[in-house]
Amino acid sequence: MKTSLGAKTLAYPTPVFIVGTYDAHGRPNAMAVAWGGICCSKPPCVAISVRKATYTYGNLVERQAFTVSIPSEAHVVAADYFGLASGRDVDKFVAAGLTPVRSDLVDAPYVAEFPLVLECNVVHVHELGLHTLFAGEIVDVKAEETCLDADGRLSAELVRPFSWAPGNNAYYALGERLGSAFSVGKVFGTKDS
Amino acid sequence: MKTSLGAKTLAYPTPVFIVGTYDAHGRPNAMAVAWGGICCSKPPCVAISVRKATYTYGNLVERQAFTVSIPSEAHVVAADYFGLASGRDVDKFVAAGLTPVRSDLVDAPYVAEFPLVLECNVVHVHELGLHTLFAGEIVDVKAEETCLDADGRLSAELVRPFSWAPGNNAYYALGERLGSAFSVGKVFGTKDS
Repeated sequence: MKTSLGAKTLAYPTPVFIVGTYDAHGRPNAMAVAWGGICCSKPPCVAISVRKATYTYGNLVERQAFTVSIPSEAHVVAADYFGLASGRDVDKFVAAGLTPVRSDLVDAPYVAEFPLVLECNVVHVHELGLHTLFAGEIVDVKAEETCLDADGRLSAELVRPFSWAPGNNAYYALGERLGSAFSVGKVFGTKDS
Repeated sequence: MKTSLGAKTLAYPTPVFIVGTYDAHGRPNAMAVAWGGICCSKPPCVAISVRKATYTYGNLVERQAFTVSIPSEAHVVAADYFGLASGRDVDKFVAAGLTPVRSDLVDAPYVAEFPLVLECNVVHVHELGLHTLFAGEIVDVKAEETCLDADGRLSAELVRPFSWAPGNNAYYALGERLGSAFSVGKVFGTKDS
């Protein structure tokens, strides 16, 4: 039996993207963003939505570039902090003891200690309401070599990403592997069967 | 040490949204969408990106409405199937043995058996390249009563959502709880400390 919860932003899983930008003075900032996800395959693009009130918003408009650093479960405390403090008040990298690295491809910094990084140039900006959606074209993805499997593929089990759950407002680790995608569903038939 | 993987759509966690639409004949369809996420808090909106070649694309343009049904880990096989077959060729609900329910709020069907449903009207359409992003305003969220905790809040641990991992192309269950959001990071300081 389903019950109505109203018009709310409840969906799972929700990412914890750490969005890196430079401010007008060239100071690195990082902010936790849960409203986002990949939005196009060609060109490869990722969408992030931020409020105009954030320090990151001004940096995005000014620099037209950002990175998405994806933390491992070991970094959950720092990632949460990136969503609590504002770059207007404090250098969050210094406070969290993390290292900003200047991207050599886009005008933005990423988090050295996090295992997976997307380097992006802003290609579309859409005002949606409280949030503005920035679509960034992904010009490169960088990963720790320790996160590649024996076939050289990026492995979620080695990255150990985590998600944020709206509703009960908690972070969750990656759980057990349930099966291969574009595969287990063939039991119900495919185009060719 | 980080290594370059090229300009690719690699990010974690990636959702498995089952997007429900009606076609021109009023037949229900459902499609698995991994490129999407919440994109605005006010009005509450969710973004989904689909290729023009999909049957869902035409349905979205015609009906200007969709639902997002979020499957539990028990539904991983059916969810994968929704990403393999096309509504042009087959009634996927019938093939997967699932039940389409007409939303009483938007012109789209949802999956009765899945625990969490977002009912949406299209409010923005953005051409990004291979994919088109549809932002839908969430007019209601419906959840199984069994997915609410003792405080009446939606609980990820009761929904049991899963994610898709690009790279190694597998589905993963929700893992262990790592901590409370907007809380564990206070160790590094907050605006008021």
